[in-house]
Amino acid sequence: MKEEAVSFQDVLEAYRKIRNFVIRTPTYMSVIFSRRTGAEVYLKLESFQPVGSFKIRGAINKICSLSPSELKKGLVASSSGNHGLSVAYAAKIFGVRAVVVVPENAVKEKVEAIEGYGAEVVKYGKDFDEAYSKAIEIQKETKAIFVHAFNDPFVIAGQGTIGLELLEDVPDLDTIIAPVGGGGLISGVAIAAKTLKPNIKIVGVQAEGAPAVYRSWKAGKIVEMASVRTVADGLTSRKPLDLTFNTMRRYVDDILLVTDREIGEAVLALLREAHILAEPSGAASLAALLFRYNPKPKEKVAAIISGANISIDYLASLLRKT
Amino acid sequence: MKEEAVSFQDVLEAYRKIRNFVIRTPTYMSVIFSRRTGAEVYLKLESFQPVGSFKIRGAINKICSLSPSELKKGLVASSSGNHGLSVAYAAKIFGVRAVVVVPENAVKEKVEAIEGYGAEVVKYGKDFDEAYSKAIEIQKETKAIFVHAFNDPFVIAGQGTIGLELLEDVPDLDTIIAPVGGGGLISGVAIAAKTLKPNIKIVGVQAEGAPAVYRSWKAGKIVEMASVRTVADGLTSRKPLDLTFNTMRRYVDDILLVTDREIGEAVLALLREAHILAEPSGAASLAALLFRYNPKPKEKVAAIISGANISIDYLASLLRKT
Repeated sequence: MKEEAVSFQDVLEAYRKIRNFVIRTPTYMSVIFSRRTGAEVYLKLESFQPVGSFKIRGAINKICSLSPSELKKGLVASSSGNHGLSVAYAAKIFGVRAVVVVPENAVKEKVEAIEGYGAEVVKYGKDFDEAYSKAIEIQKETKAIFVHAFNDPFVIAGQGTIGLELLEDVPDLDTIIAPVGGGGLISGVAIAAKTLKPNIKIVGVQAEGAPAVYRSWKAGKIVEMASVRTVADGLTSRKPLDLTFNTMRRYVDDILLVTDREIGEAVLALLREAHILAEPSGAASLAALLFRYNPKPKEKVAAIISGANISIDYLASLLRKT
Repeated sequence: MKEEAVSFQDVLEAYRKIRNFVIRTPTYMSVIFSRRTGAEVYLKLESFQPVGSFKIRGAINKICSLSPSELKKGLVASSSGNHGLSVAYAAKIFGVRAVVVVPENAVKEKVEAIEGYGAEVVKYGKDFDEAYSKAIEIQKETKAIFVHAFNDPFVIAGQGTIGLELLEDVPDLDTIIAPVGGGGLISGVAIAAKTLKPNIKIVGVQAEGAPAVYRSWKAGKIVEMASVRTVADGLTSRKPLDLTFNTMRRYVDDILLVTDREIGEAVLALLREAHILAEPSGAASLAALLFRYNPKPKEKVAAIISGANISIDYLASLLRKT
């Protein structure tokens, strides 16, 4: 087994650096979902971070890793969602310039929010991949620091701090369920949690319409999807990359698929029964727990509610159906 | 000036007792609402407590004040909302029996949630006052401990811990805006905050359709309303009582009224712009900040977002209008 790109020490180091900038989010024991599943259910509410998603942890840790001369070059990232928001917010805190490349069809509110944090938004291309290529191009021209959404050891280590907090709050936790887009979150969390408690079970969740990591993990090699389609816009990656894929192969015990309908039901259940707002990607872990994962009685299961940046139109459409 | 019923020491003592049971809620600096108001806006997200409201602080502190023999008698409370939920939840944590009297027209979901925490629900009467009388009657019969929603020094001291956290997070805070129902929240917060920073401004918010405390505070004597009507069900008290009224007279600098429409707009703005779910009473402080309070440029203003237990029907109706 080759040396891991991210160590437990890296996660500890990240925690020390980012804790003044991010929220120590609550690990919320849900009486209602415990009763409903027979498990002891904990919701890790990353929906509550500044900018409404866990992505801020990785973005801040990445910035903290840069030297003053690197910081002067500014940051560049491609994203239409939470990663772009997080880079913009982190750049604002550190007084650094940031350019975020978004596809031309990016959601208006998210673009405005990214601009609201003072980042420059470049609209380019018809999808994320074209925007990504443009961001790489800008990086080469400007020598700005590229902040990858997941395939970066500092980003992975930053997300891993969630694992530290979970096991601090529930030391005898049995299982962690995490949503998987590119795999940065689950990779970091797995490194932290399996070091602290080697027999903890790490379960990933993907959307049925965007199963790139699921298929890659099952196949034992990186599988790229030609296209993906899910309501969970945070889970739309078309393939994992080397850092996250290798970590997931080593540490992830299972990956489950959920349907968009199940995700919608989980969003509604969180809202109705726990008054917690989660975006579709953020509710996917609860969807897996409610509909796909069969916990043992009293099994202590944490579902990472990774973000809250839900589209108002989607929320309204869900409520109309009830 | 007569001796206050609740001292700063009582709030400190409460904080020591309750901190293992409640969440140290985030004080969230909102870039968006800061830009919109010209102030430096902090949202104190009590919406994030277990059971979705600040009321848990007072309920836990009350239970902590009881002797083992008192605890054995169980608790009784009257409420159809957050106070009932908080007493039920606190009782569950401490393994104590609880009876919550609700009016016959109480919202089904809230009744189920109270029962969900293992409390006995008694439905009685056509409104809160009739339920309250019934609860007093049950208290006399059973000798259970009555937990008043606001006119209790332990409850007030518990709510006051929010003031400690606010000034820990933002030591140079200029102003705190808090919703006012019976006045327990603002009383506790004012005692804590004015002790730590005597020149801090404390501003209360009531709904135009339920201005009992506003009128009492203006008149310098307790004024009882024959009826009140507002979408903010947490702000429907028909009169303040002695403990809270005396504290508010001494410490509160101003009370503002907001309309139901302004409250609805604040609920939507929180959802749309910050992805924070708040119930109408919880968003009232932001409504006051956006529409009624004129902050100085860069004034550091905290709005207490007191709870998240919004009715799904109300939320759906708000979203339909957009």
